[in-house]
Amino acid sequence: MSADGDGSVSGADRLAEQLAFLLEADRLKGILRQSLLADGSRRENSAEHSWHLALFALVLVEHADEPVDLPRVVTMLLLHDLVEIDAGDVFVYDDALRAAKEVEERAAAQRLFGLLPAEQGPLLKALWEEFEAKESADARFAATVDRLQPLLLNLANDGEPWRRHGITGDRVRQVNSQIGRGSTALWAHALALLDQAEAVGNLDPGLDRE
Amino acid sequence: MSADGDGSVSGADRLAEQLAFLLEADRLKGILRQSLLADGSRRENSAEHSWHLALFALVLVEHADEPVDLPRVVTMLLLHDLVEIDAGDVFVYDDALRAAKEVEERAAAQRLFGLLPAEQGPLLKALWEEFEAKESADARFAATVDRLQPLLLNLANDGEPWRRHGITGDRVRQVNSQIGRGSTALWAHALALLDQAEAVGNLDPGLDRE
Repeated sequence: MSADGDGSVSGADRLAEQLAFLLEADRLKGILRQSLLADGSRRENSAEHSWHLALFALVLVEHADEPVDLPRVVTMLLLHDLVEIDAGDVFVYDDALRAAKEVEERAAAQRLFGLLPAEQGPLLKALWEEFEAKESADARFAATVDRLQPLLLNLANDGEPWRRHGITGDRVRQVNSQIGRGSTALWAHALALLDQAEAVGNLDPGLDRE
Repeated sequence: MSADGDGSVSGADRLAEQLAFLLEADRLKGILRQSLLADGSRRENSAEHSWHLALFALVLVEHADEPVDLPRVVTMLLLHDLVEIDAGDVFVYDDALRAAKEVEERAAAQRLFGLLPAEQGPLLKALWEEFEAKESADARFAATVDRLQPLLLNLANDGEPWRRHGITGDRVRQVNSQIGRGSTALWAHALALLDQAEAVGNLDPGLDRE
């Protein structure tokens, strides 16, 4: 079968598989995260989060430390949370649950990307795996914006999600140091914002800090 | 100022402008559309809709009638609804309101993209304008998926949004014929699905049809 589709019965099957995947993806809109919207009105879901991250990448790509392939970064960000449809969202500060979820997320990727036609699913699944590994320059910059966006939303809500979960400034800096693996400039900016949040009492500095 | 940022005071201002735009964009998550999620649980918002459209474009690009630049299509889809932050969402079947909203949407684009640094805002605004004009191959394919996705969601909800607004099959075909301007294959598939919906009573055929 040609990559352009052959217009025959198998072409129709191919389109049916693609639409089945896209309808299944709709369920990501029902997966709630710990971050609130900037206006504090409700928790963010993983679909709108993914949209926001793609926009972050588009606007902030000049701050990547290494050259990145923006379309690949955007594609990773659009896909990266789909596994939550089966595995659920894991709070970034919950180390134990994060480790436990790995097997579940791999199975989810197998099932979800497996809904797509035979040569298309593996291509997208490979991008998801690259994002998860966080080793390539593209994946590291994608991970940078994936950490920066919730940090900004939490700051916009005066640190409410951190306080709700008892997360201190030390822990916020430790977990989000991933931002610095993709962009020194964005991490420097984030650190300055966290210092401010501690100064005004929106973030508990933690044991190791004054 | 170099495109890479100069790291000085003006570089910091530049990043502050970009983050202000990205935080303002968060409000798109609060704009509700007429379509329901596929599971019928609630109305879809324009941010998660934009994410879903970008995913549609990624998966369905092979069905475009003409060659398209996928990253440009995806970027258009990520940006295309931002003006609703100021102008609100307009139901695609409400012709009078759609015409009235044009001036409001142009002002919204001016304000929102104007939050970005001097040379970045106009680049993104130009993509929004290209999408609105629906003339280039990229814009027509973006418009194709922008019409196909709500049609599939409405079908997944047994046509509830159409019935709620008294929209007949004739009108659905007329308004969504835009799908065919970007993809003959996707429009043929959509027409077959609409025929089925009429056959099982989920869509009122309208006056001109049996």
